[in-house]
Amino acid sequence: MFTFPKLHLLLIFFISLLSSFLSTASPINIWPKPRFLSWPQHKAITLSPDFTIISPQHQYLTASVTRYHNLIHSENYSPLITSSIKLIKRYTLSKLVVTITDLSLPLHHGVNESYTLSIPFKSSSAHLSAHSVWGAMHGLETFSQITWGKAPELCVPVGIYIQDPPLFGHRGVLLDTSRNYYGVEDITRTIKAMSANKLNVFHWHITDSHSFPLVLPSEPSLAAKGSYGPDMVYTPEDVSMIVQFGLEHGVRVLPEIDTPGHTGSWGEAYPDIVTCANMFWWPAGKSWDERLASEPGTGQLNPLNPKTYEVVKNVIQDVAKLFPEPFFHGGGDEVIPGCWKTDPAITSFLSSGGTLSQLLEKYINSTLPYIVSQNRTVVYWEDVLLDAQIKVESSFLPKDHTILQTWNNGPVNTKRIVAAGYRVIVSSSEYYYLDCGHGGFLGNDSQYDQQGGGGGSGGGSWCAPFKTWQTIYNYDITDGLVDEEERKLVLGGEVALWSEQADPTVLDSRLWPRASAFAESLWSGNRDERGVKRCGEALDRLHRWRYRMVKRGIGAEPIQPLWCLRNPGMCNAAVHSASEDL
Amino acid sequence: MFTFPKLHLLLIFFISLLSSFLSTASPINIWPKPRFLSWPQHKAITLSPDFTIISPQHQYLTASVTRYHNLIHSENYSPLITSSIKLIKRYTLSKLVVTITDLSLPLHHGVNESYTLSIPFKSSSAHLSAHSVWGAMHGLETFSQITWGKAPELCVPVGIYIQDPPLFGHRGVLLDTSRNYYGVEDITRTIKAMSANKLNVFHWHITDSHSFPLVLPSEPSLAAKGSYGPDMVYTPEDVSMIVQFGLEHGVRVLPEIDTPGHTGSWGEAYPDIVTCANMFWWPAGKSWDERLASEPGTGQLNPLNPKTYEVVKNVIQDVAKLFPEPFFHGGGDEVIPGCWKTDPAITSFLSSGGTLSQLLEKYINSTLPYIVSQNRTVVYWEDVLLDAQIKVESSFLPKDHTILQTWNNGPVNTKRIVAAGYRVIVSSSEYYYLDCGHGGFLGNDSQYDQQGGGGGSGGGSWCAPFKTWQTIYNYDITDGLVDEEERKLVLGGEVALWSEQADPTVLDSRLWPRASAFAESLWSGNRDERGVKRCGEALDRLHRWRYRMVKRGIGAEPIQPLWCLRNPGMCNAAVHSASEDL
Repeated sequence: MFTFPKLHLLLIFFISLLSSFLSTASPINIWPKPRFLSWPQHKAITLSPDFTIISPQHQYLTASVTRYHNLIHSENYSPLITSSIKLIKRYTLSKLVVTITDLSLPLHHGVNESYTLSIPFKSSSAHLSAHSVWGAMHGLETFSQITWGKAPELCVPVGIYIQDPPLFGHRGVLLDTSRNYYGVEDITRTIKAMSANKLNVFHWHITDSHSFPLVLPSEPSLAAKGSYGPDMVYTPEDVSMIVQFGLEHGVRVLPEIDTPGHTGSWGEAYPDIVTCANMFWWPAGKSWDERLASEPGTGQLNPLNPKTYEVVKNVIQDVAKLFPEPFFHGGGDEVIPGCWKTDPAITSFLSSGGTLSQLLEKYINSTLPYIVSQNRTVVYWEDVLLDAQIKVESSFLPKDHTILQTWNNGPVNTKRIVAAGYRVIVSSSEYYYLDCGHGGFLGNDSQYDQQGGGGGSGGGSWCAPFKTWQTIYNYDITDGLVDEEERKLVLGGEVALWSEQADPTVLDSRLWPRASAFAESLWSGNRDERGVKRCGEALDRLHRWRYRMVKRGIGAEPIQPLWCLRNPGMCNAAVHSASEDL
Repeated sequence: MFTFPKLHLLLIFFISLLSSFLSTASPINIWPKPRFLSWPQHKAITLSPDFTIISPQHQYLTASVTRYHNLIHSENYSPLITSSIKLIKRYTLSKLVVTITDLSLPLHHGVNESYTLSIPFKSSSAHLSAHSVWGAMHGLETFSQITWGKAPELCVPVGIYIQDPPLFGHRGVLLDTSRNYYGVEDITRTIKAMSANKLNVFHWHITDSHSFPLVLPSEPSLAAKGSYGPDMVYTPEDVSMIVQFGLEHGVRVLPEIDTPGHTGSWGEAYPDIVTCANMFWWPAGKSWDERLASEPGTGQLNPLNPKTYEVVKNVIQDVAKLFPEPFFHGGGDEVIPGCWKTDPAITSFLSSGGTLSQLLEKYINSTLPYIVSQNRTVVYWEDVLLDAQIKVESSFLPKDHTILQTWNNGPVNTKRIVAAGYRVIVSSSEYYYLDCGHGGFLGNDSQYDQQGGGGGSGGGSWCAPFKTWQTIYNYDITDGLVDEEERKLVLGGEVALWSEQADPTVLDSRLWPRASAFAESLWSGNRDERGVKRCGEALDRLHRWRYRMVKRGIGAEPIQPLWCLRNPGMCNAAVHSASEDL
């Protein structure tokens, strides 16, 4: 009676070991892992010398097909493990036939991105079908990842069937190009890497207090005076190229013009519309509540100056013209009382009984219609609704037109936002901020002249510690939500790279492969078929994918010694034990 | 009576502000800052079109002169601030004359590296004099850093006089090429960057448990079987080239062959001489004291196997032939009881009353003479003397031939080592380990599946937090030593990049500019003339130097938004106040 359950446990243990071995040992290493993959026989065939991809003509899909055709023939990828595969020589694969249900579906949030890919036995054709061209692009990426070998002997698995819809529709990367500048090539390289990871939203935090790099036809002085210099701007032609590049890669380019806070750079062109510009951020002897900004780089738009609205309206109209994307990010974060209070008109308004929140309400109420009238859905940071000091009543934020992006308090704020009835994008700083953990960037910081190195256990980084790929991978963005009604308000998430301590020299290594971990978590989840977190199993797959990204020109950082990849399981924190599985 | 001191304080405050302004505003930005620099008139002249550097013929100096001549004419450096300088057009500088007191002084520890550089008024010649060619190389670097403008109009300050000896003779960077591999070009680029920062010791941690990339003529199987692959080795020709490159840059190449711990990779060629090789590092259910290694990658040389000594002797002789450097690093860190205890001969020795420390004493006593007989001074990690469990009596470590390198407990262990009468190299992990703060690298780590992101406040990195440049800059390596007798035993220090989470993709950004902060701290110190820490003043200089390094091809990471460099002082933690100065 007592031994039977033990034997039972042992059996499950060995089955689990075996399946773990199979998944680790498979030469098929698709990142993010597909939702459903069947490849029972572990057989492969080669591509015929005249292999082609046949697809309907489409402005963006055709560019994608050409790109993947070239990648497949030039990558020469050699997987670590091929010995378990039987190569069938009797026939070769001469084409991949792509079929699309609706060629006209635009790249908007919620578009069907699923695809089905099959390479049947005894056929010279593989099949990729998708509802939209954007789903087909994901399928092409998958096809490229299951191709290996050196041209002309390129191998693909045969008898494989993949059915692959994403869990979340919004899977983004935020890049801040204001604190430090990135060249156009840095941005397109990032979009290319996003596409390879099936990420689909490039959230471009274009402007902030530090620089205004976007050249706008109606307001050229903003960049002329507020950028870091004439060689550190994005022209309308640059933007158009980036947007086009995004479309060819299935990546939306979502612009953020952060207002009314984070606008010091606007003051170079329009000193009158910005309060507290170019002042020391935290006056000596004052408390944190009396700071002018949460970090160096002060300046907020003045809601009481009519000129503010003229400029903002021009900016929004120009940006809407440049970016076809139906979401428009209006910012709205970190409006700081001390900054507005430096303005005489505002102090007068306050001493007459007005409140800081009324100022923000006036600003939102005036500018939100500019955005909505451009047929855009507005995204704001959660602060507009949840800030402890300056926020607006929810009546100012129409639920049909407003999405809130959360960055504080992990699941708590996600819950507060959906409970208030808003759609939410999750970019919790505790899990998804990729800049954290590199210490503080402030100068003359006495905390670093302490025994032990200083900076406390977090090293002086406000959002320490560094978010490891495992931290990111394991986070469930719908944690704490009670029903489907709440969960469906979670559109997805974003990892964010703020650029106080980042620029092109570290762009790739800060983003990758940690954004890849995020990508799989939002595409197909972080749990295996049994509902158990699959972080342990994901490690070797991610490690291999990291090396493949590096070969593709993305400088992803290493996550382990190469030795660990060569010795699967040996670099684990603890040996796999049966009790952990059950 | 009461107001006078206050006025006095105010005066000192304004003088300090003024001097801080002058140093910030100076276009002359030498990193590390020279010990003594005089340039009272802020005037400059241009280099004549036929400008040459005249120096005595010397194998390495001549190569250095050629390199600097090319750099000066191709760099086209434009400093942020030139307006305060008056350019004298009446005459130009046609030569820099280099004189050396003793051309034969070799690049050994303690060689005189000082130089004097002067560019007098009304003369067509500048003068660089040094005791050794190595000091002259530092002077050439300084000359390159005070040159600006676009060829053919290259400017240098005139009426300038620099006298510049280093505070410490050992100023090193450790790179671990075993856990992940770096190409020869990565190493030479690092040496080039070290030379620009007046660092002079490349501590090459060549081998470890993960791979043995060094091809040795007498023991070729070690690399053939223990490296990551035939394209991931260093051949004798590679080493010879790197050593030569170091000599041309004034950088010693100090080899470390870590034994008897950290030798798992030796077991690929010689399974018999390595205990516990390829075992899981921390057996399930065991306590930390029973681990086989402190991280994945097990294996220790067996002191009871005579074959061990044959191999080690061959290795030491080969390495001594390849590296002319008079220091030889023998490792000696982290010998773990559990690993030796897996060996039957050792357990038998222990059960007969022998101790683990006796085993290490046997090993050290046998192998130290191999090193000393090659006319080398042995460097060991502090563990051989200070480890809590396995260590040797100091009688086994002759003080004339042994230097200890400290990495634990900050100033405490430095003190213990010098108090025991040993020379010490300081690479305290609390201050100088550049790999810290990137989370843990172990797989399947349940700590990352926790509310809040997991990994605790340090994010799972054993030596968290990340060491900021300020942490590094502010550390005093002789802290807590009581007299000159003790302080003179501190040869200098090293920053260290261990490669569990590093490889060529992040090499430059992990090292620089933090190793630059270290470099200045050891060359000219971290205090101003008044003895006050100058970290605040150093910030803008380091930031500018970081941009110059990037232009020179070193991918140093950014330390702040560019905005901070454009707005000096505005990114400080707190506004400069008089009370802080006094």
